[in-house]
Amino acid sequence: MINKQLPKIWFGGDYNPEQWDKETWDEDIRMFKLAGIDVATLNVFSWALNQPDEDTYDFAWLDEQIDRLYEQGIYTCLATSTAAHPAWMAKKYPDILRVDFHGQQRKFGGRHNSCPNSPTYRKYSERIADKLAARYKEHPGVLIWHVSNEYGGYCYCGYCEAAFREWLKEKYKTLDEVNRVWNTRFWGHTFYDWDEIVAPNALSEERKGSETDFQGISIDYRRFMSDSLLECFQLEYNALKKHTPDTPVTTNLMGTFPMLDYFKWGKEMDVVSWDNYPAMDTPLSYTAMTHDLMRGLKGGQPFMLMEQTPSQQNWQPYNSLKRPGVMRLWSYQAVARGADTVLYFQLRRSAGATEKFHGAVIEHAGHEHSRVFRETAELGRELDMLSDEVLDSRVQARAAIVFDWENRWAVELSSGPSVALDYVTEVHKYYDALYQQNIQVDMIGVEEDLSGYDLVIAPVLYMVKRGYADKLKAFVNNGGTFVTTFFSGIVDEHDLVTLGGYPGELRRLLGIWAEEIDALPPEKKNQIIMKEPWEHGQKEYDCRMLFDLIHAESAEVLAEYGSDFYAGMPVVTKNSYGSGNAYYVASSPEGDFLKDFLRDLCEKQGIDPLVTHADDGVEASERHRDSRSYLFLMNHNDRTSSFDIGERQTEDLLTGQKVTGAHTIEPKGVMILKDFR
Amino acid sequence: MINKQLPKIWFGGDYNPEQWDKETWDEDIRMFKLAGIDVATLNVFSWALNQPDEDTYDFAWLDEQIDRLYEQGIYTCLATSTAAHPAWMAKKYPDILRVDFHGQQRKFGGRHNSCPNSPTYRKYSERIADKLAARYKEHPGVLIWHVSNEYGGYCYCGYCEAAFREWLKEKYKTLDEVNRVWNTRFWGHTFYDWDEIVAPNALSEERKGSETDFQGISIDYRRFMSDSLLECFQLEYNALKKHTPDTPVTTNLMGTFPMLDYFKWGKEMDVVSWDNYPAMDTPLSYTAMTHDLMRGLKGGQPFMLMEQTPSQQNWQPYNSLKRPGVMRLWSYQAVARGADTVLYFQLRRSAGATEKFHGAVIEHAGHEHSRVFRETAELGRELDMLSDEVLDSRVQARAAIVFDWENRWAVELSSGPSVALDYVTEVHKYYDALYQQNIQVDMIGVEEDLSGYDLVIAPVLYMVKRGYADKLKAFVNNGGTFVTTFFSGIVDEHDLVTLGGYPGELRRLLGIWAEEIDALPPEKKNQIIMKEPWEHGQKEYDCRMLFDLIHAESAEVLAEYGSDFYAGMPVVTKNSYGSGNAYYVASSPEGDFLKDFLRDLCEKQGIDPLVTHADDGVEASERHRDSRSYLFLMNHNDRTSSFDIGERQTEDLLTGQKVTGAHTIEPKGVMILKDFR
Amino acid sequence: MINKQLPKIWFGGDYNPEQWDKETWDEDIRMFKLAGIDVATLNVFSWALNQPDEDTYDFAWLDEQIDRLYEQGIYTCLATSTAAHPAWMAKKYPDILRVDFHGQQRKFGGRHNSCPNSPTYRKYSERIADKLAARYKEHPGVLIWHVSNEYGGYCYCGYCEAAFREWLKEKYKTLDEVNRVWNTRFWGHTFYDWDEIVAPNALSEERKGSETDFQGISIDYRRFMSDSLLECFQLEYNALKKHTPDTPVTTNLMGTFPMLDYFKWGKEMDVVSWDNYPAMDTPLSYTAMTHDLMRGLKGGQPFMLMEQTPSQQNWQPYNSLKRPGVMRLWSYQAVARGADTVLYFQLRRSAGATEKFHGAVIEHAGHEHSRVFRETAELGRELDMLSDEVLDSRVQARAAIVFDWENRWAVELSSGPSVALDYVTEVHKYYDALYQQNIQVDMIGVEEDLSGYDLVIAPVLYMVKRGYADKLKAFVNNGGTFVTTFFSGIVDEHDLVTLGGYPGELRRLLGIWAEEIDALPPEKKNQIIMKEPWEHGQKEYDCRMLFDLIHAESAEVLAEYGSDFYAGMPVVTKNSYGSGNAYYVASSPEGDFLKDFLRDLCEKQGIDPLVTHADDGVEASERHRDSRSYLFLMNHNDRTSSFDIGERQTEDLLTGQKVTGAHTIEPKGVMILKDFR
Repeated sequence: MINKQLPKIWFGGDYNPEQWDKETWDEDIRMFKLAGIDVATLNVFSWALNQPDEDTYDFAWLDEQIDRLYEQGIYTCLATSTAAHPAWMAKKYPDILRVDFHGQQRKFGGRHNSCPNSPTYRKYSERIADKLAARYKEHPGVLIWHVSNEYGGYCYCGYCEAAFREWLKEKYKTLDEVNRVWNTRFWGHTFYDWDEIVAPNALSEERKGSETDFQGISIDYRRFMSDSLLECFQLEYNALKKHTPDTPVTTNLMGTFPMLDYFKWGKEMDVVSWDNYPAMDTPLSYTAMTHDLMRGLKGGQPFMLMEQTPSQQNWQPYNSLKRPGVMRLWSYQAVARGADTVLYFQLRRSAGATEKFHGAVIEHAGHEHSRVFRETAELGRELDMLSDEVLDSRVQARAAIVFDWENRWAVELSSGPSVALDYVTEVHKYYDALYQQNIQVDMIGVEEDLSGYDLVIAPVLYMVKRGYADKLKAFVNNGGTFVTTFFSGIVDEHDLVTLGGYPGELRRLLGIWAEEIDALPPEKKNQIIMKEPWEHGQKEYDCRMLFDLIHAESAEVLAEYGSDFYAGMPVVTKNSYGSGNAYYVASSPEGDFLKDFLRDLCEKQGIDPLVTHADDGVEASERHRDSRSYLFLMNHNDRTSSFDIGERQTEDLLTGQKVTGAHTIEPKGVMILKDFR
Repeated sequence: MINKQLPKIWFGGDYNPEQWDKETWDEDIRMFKLAGIDVATLNVFSWALNQPDEDTYDFAWLDEQIDRLYEQGIYTCLATSTAAHPAWMAKKYPDILRVDFHGQQRKFGGRHNSCPNSPTYRKYSERIADKLAARYKEHPGVLIWHVSNEYGGYCYCGYCEAAFREWLKEKYKTLDEVNRVWNTRFWGHTFYDWDEIVAPNALSEERKGSETDFQGISIDYRRFMSDSLLECFQLEYNALKKHTPDTPVTTNLMGTFPMLDYFKWGKEMDVVSWDNYPAMDTPLSYTAMTHDLMRGLKGGQPFMLMEQTPSQQNWQPYNSLKRPGVMRLWSYQAVARGADTVLYFQLRRSAGATEKFHGAVIEHAGHEHSRVFRETAELGRELDMLSDEVLDSRVQARAAIVFDWENRWAVELSSGPSVALDYVTEVHKYYDALYQQNIQVDMIGVEEDLSGYDLVIAPVLYMVKRGYADKLKAFVNNGGTFVTTFFSGIVDEHDLVTLGGYPGELRRLLGIWAEEIDALPPEKKNQIIMKEPWEHGQKEYDCRMLFDLIHAESAEVLAEYGSDFYAGMPVVTKNSYGSGNAYYVASSPEGDFLKDFLRDLCEKQGIDPLVTHADDGVEASERHRDSRSYLFLMNHNDRTSSFDIGERQTEDLLTGQKVTGAHTIEPKGVMILKDFR
Repeated sequence: MINKQLPKIWFGGDYNPEQWDKETWDEDIRMFKLAGIDVATLNVFSWALNQPDEDTYDFAWLDEQIDRLYEQGIYTCLATSTAAHPAWMAKKYPDILRVDFHGQQRKFGGRHNSCPNSPTYRKYSERIADKLAARYKEHPGVLIWHVSNEYGGYCYCGYCEAAFREWLKEKYKTLDEVNRVWNTRFWGHTFYDWDEIVAPNALSEERKGSETDFQGISIDYRRFMSDSLLECFQLEYNALKKHTPDTPVTTNLMGTFPMLDYFKWGKEMDVVSWDNYPAMDTPLSYTAMTHDLMRGLKGGQPFMLMEQTPSQQNWQPYNSLKRPGVMRLWSYQAVARGADTVLYFQLRRSAGATEKFHGAVIEHAGHEHSRVFRETAELGRELDMLSDEVLDSRVQARAAIVFDWENRWAVELSSGPSVALDYVTEVHKYYDALYQQNIQVDMIGVEEDLSGYDLVIAPVLYMVKRGYADKLKAFVNNGGTFVTTFFSGIVDEHDLVTLGGYPGELRRLLGIWAEEIDALPPEKKNQIIMKEPWEHGQKEYDCRMLFDLIHAESAEVLAEYGSDFYAGMPVVTKNSYGSGNAYYVASSPEGDFLKDFLRDLCEKQGIDPLVTHADDGVEASERHRDSRSYLFLMNHNDRTSSFDIGERQTEDLLTGQKVTGAHTIEPKGVMILKDFR
């Protein structure tokens, strides 16, 4: 449990009373109570208020707010306020200002604006965390620490360059090794002195943010920047823990945000939290995948939904309202996949500046007579009723999909073979095929133990880090089923090609050799011709983008290309390896192929869907604790839909209704089915 | 009258004899006479020629030109030459060079290149204006002063930053007030010292020129920059007026140019002038609206058409020729809407540099045997014939559309709800609906007295400045009809939301409350379902983009949404208020709706079209002086078209033909119908 | 012959053994022999390796490689390694770092990164060339010098600005003359001191790389930059020649690369070489044109194909494989059009950095059992068999197309009349029409003697340099046929308009006057209505983009516009001039028009196609030496196709087959038909 002081699904969100007057505060309390809100996140952007100059700290306003809320039964998620430095600090200590990708030093403005290697930033961010922890360590209202906010953004200043060189020394020891792993003899980039190394940006090796002349330095700079920001987090983390060792510490992550290696971050956080802001056209399965990914960062431990909007965002091109019922539905989607909190950005809308058109529990109108408030309050009542019922329960999945930020960087930075290749999109295609069939999946990093899984899928496993091929071999050898795709096994962790034939270290495991990799523009396609169609499957599917020209060595050919000069060459193969099987999908297939393919693999491994049947648009996810299980059914459709849970005897926690066999679920409806026996 | 020395519609334009030799000058005179040209604008870009170094001024060339022209009966519109600083000045005084939006100081080049707060620029631009006025104050050939040229462009240098802080002190007095109106507690941007404030650009608060993190500072910086450039104008204005108090002073504006608050500028100019360069696809009604807007800057006083091209532009992507008759037609469009001059850029085409492919009265061929010259000379003859006939007459409109630059900036800078919202486009939609029905309209600012109007339309009146709601209420209370739209009444002049429910200060007047604002992508739409269709109107219209979810309080519902979860909620309302009515249009409707809607309102208010009937493409506008009235009919079609003026008895000034009742007008034809009795 | 030491078509390419270990070197040799490789280009990017610090030079590794290869019968094309400066040099001497178009000084990174006017670069690049030549002057393995690599890119630093001013002084002598030719009185840009002139970039006169306010300075800066880089080449050239006067020197060019005036460069090189990297959608005739252009740089002398990929590129958006047979086919296309070498980038693929996914003879798999290697080795065998057969033979063309880089710059920098106008595209349209009919063409510069041609085509001859009009007149007067188009004869070499009527100096020759130039967007068109259709020709063709409104003076009208207000005005004219004819095409016609038009002209001039008939997709080109002739037939189709060579009696050098009359050619097939008698 995140914090036993409040043993229920926390309900509340970001709250900025410092923007308002006392009269408003009273009204806030009245409305929080109407809505069933029990947690407020304070102090996210109040550094300038807390520290008006170098020597002065003033937390009186915060004392008052935490007390006031606590007296009314509302707990505080206490932020450290370091996500935006004060204007006076930028003026006095310009080292805190980032240098951007184009090599220009920024001025004061925006947020997430501090250089992570700035001595000033490190000194004062650590100090304020220390002061806050010392001050509130005894306060019963403080449930959890929220360090900074949505860490991200890179810097290319002289401090970062110097720190990068130190980071490299630490990692590679010698310049010879740096030259080797970056292959600097290409284009004569050999370094003879550490100081010759400069940050890779638009003035040196990179262009447009994802093009580089040297993948080695660019991947390392991403690692370094992720580490630099993580160090900033850790400085605050340690300062907080010194005073409050038992209060959990988190920082809010951003799902598939590209800039940080979240698997590395997850290890350093007490509990993972994240901000869920799907765009209008984000597929439901993408949101589901992201929840699963966030859950995976700490090996399945429940996470916090730290932010979502009650209705509208403001930074999308077209900020449509969440339709009636959708906010509740998506809140339960998070809980179904491992969240133990439902928090919003924000409790009250600002009257000015850039987020004033972002939705809030309390809108500009300021009263409770609105659709959004009614939906919020209704959810508050339900969560109250659920009490600690699903709290701390875990998802149990026998299938896993591998997601790796470093591999993602390497794929994104690759020059060729195709600009159309997007790592996350390929991963999501596989996830979606399982999601559509209601098969529970874990999203795992490459350091995860595989022994608990029966099926492991690693799409576009371009970068195979030291030891990972062996781990995969052991997994398959022990009976596991492994699936990977085109453009896998190409490089090691330095982006150096594994010579001797693709897919490199995976060649033996997969029993194939990829001689060439064709790339075609989006309007062109090839076909996957099945040698033996699956039951209910098709004879032929489309595939696109990249086309490995492979030779089966020990593998069995399941399907062949249907056209072009490599018609008849294998496109899907299966290789027996020890007690298991390893599959290779040599191109990017249409969704129907993946559904049929993965259904077959799951059936072979005895991995069952969570429900016997569910209409399209009805999502299922299940959490377990001790002997109890909670099967969440969520109907994303605008119409009443059906599902079938077979012989399970359950009760819907939200209605008390008994449910077994086939059943209907109302539009946008949610059911939490608890087995009883 | 602009200047009684030349009591007719001035005809001529920009002339750069300094680029040519004496032989060419003589040829110019010969051709000017053939074309009926009587005004030449001199000295627009001759600063470097006038002042070859810091201490030397040499106007001998200008003496010669003004004299030479005057001797041949051609008057001078005398520019002050400060639109492009000399290269030597940029080298010697780099403070004159702007710092651009990306924070880089420019080098010498281009034009409109001077920092408006540069001490060097202010000193030398004022000085040269002073010298020019002192020198030519007695010259009978000088009709008017033309200060600088097409002011525009922002600077972000240290001088501007310092001046911005002074501007803020002047406006807000205290930093506390700055912090309040910019809502700097959001994201912890509180300023403790004036010097902490930096210019908002790509290095601080803004992105892409129209995205900002703090609307407050960004709107104020636009006000400040508009004021800074206006101060530059005023410095020259005052220097000129000191010597020549009776010679009018203008500077050429650019229609709907976004960067300057032209209503504020209009007040400081003796006469408004502007440069009309429609693109190939600019709607005719947009040009008409822009003429009306320019006329509105000084409360309806006649303006100058300072520049238009005789045929071709050069900076459009595809610079098509003005088709035969179009140049004449568009010249009369300007006159019909209030222009008392028809001037071109340019009288003779340059032989080199970037505008050498811009059309001119005298082309590179250099002789009169061309279509463009013939059309020009024909127009010259007509304007000569018109003499002072329409001069100084005024347009009388009973309908007005509100246009406000500060509101425009605020809408443009808003983060959410939709990137598709463009203020000028929405204004133009309403204008167009009236234009299509030949209803005369004034374009007015928010400081205009409303008592002369029966119908006032303020599309997207997002920002309601202090006192404006009261002015509107008084207008309606006294019997006026007021129309506004979705996304109105949201903020005050600081872009701070008016709390308590949209549309804020307009809520009582409109009798509605807007609970939510939905935004949908361009391909999606809703419907306006009329409760009682207008005569000849439709039952249903489409609407798009933004959709206020409104509740009628005291208002009557005229139409409801046709679909989505807010089907049945009001989309068009009418509220009785005192003796008048206030209408709210909660979404962006298709043009047909606006035509039917506004026709109905005009009929109710007794606002008649200028003509009983006119074919599509036949434009009408009328000017009045004393008891005389001039009804302009302009046929934009390629075919003979019809109109009907009812029982009026008129004579066409251009042909002497008597016209009454129904009549035809030839393709691209123009008629100026003067009532006689 | 390029170098008699190896009297055959050289076969090999770029080789970077410094990236590999000794074991790999041995394997390389084994595979080179399998593939018939006899030339390796060494040392292209090894500056940092050769000169690890300011005082140390170490060529031991290079000695070893050259020797090793030579011992195995493989010659060296020896590069000077100056295409990428060492990191230590950038750190120690920042003057070597370029300032980019946006005015920012770069840091170390990329390649082609040295400022061409950097004292450091000039000193050390010359020095290393000198050292290399001194060291290897006696080595029998060194066939040719390869200076730097793919020169290109501009710099805008202070050194360049200073050098630009010197270049201007040298060219124009006085500032008055600079002011005149740049027409600086426009916009008051008069310079009073040389130091006031700054480099034209995004901070001064230019935008987006091809927009400028002053064409004069922008064209001159391109000339200056091309000259600056050429001086760098010449510094190395002279250093090499001092030691090895008999060893040819080249640098690899890039076809229609825009930044350098290759006709000027060609004069300074002993042999032209170039890198052929067509994109997926590059038309075959465009590649053919580019080969012809490269051949034209030195008046028809055979050139080197320095680089092509064996199969895949990596910097295209979608890097598709060269289909089977295509690499061989395109290699022969180069030879057919004048290449005496077939070289690849690269012999072995790098394991790391940005080009690791660029194809190579030896792929990452590292063995010979691949399609690409087999095709390479097959070609190697054929080239070996051909021995010196076609070497040093020349193409004989009676038709020529004019291509001029300075004219191209001027057209590209022009502001108006249409952004759609692309010089190279227009040139290619004319080339393609002749290519489709298998008429041999030379691509020539404006300094070429025209007396050897019967037909000269100069599309969009916008800039007519001093004396060129006279040269064209003499050519036509003597019986030649000349064709030019819309937007020709407009300016002199300074981009100053030739006054008195377009097409300026060409007016008498063409017998027409262009009164106006209309520009329409891409979706609009006009028609070419033939007065007398050609045999098998059409009555009417489409034309687009620009439309000169011309008057025939002495010319005969062949066709008229079909619509718009200039319907009936001439669009194609023919003017008799002396013994020849000059044609004007006043708009940009569809391809069918050009085929019919140019077929007619060729027939009239007795210019015959190379073959009596060839199916579409079958390309022909012929080379001659002494009395021998080699007719290359190349089938780009995927099907067997036909051609007919009439009564010629030939033998296919590749198969020994006798060929006469009609014949078939296999898909992707090549035949080299040698006449025998």
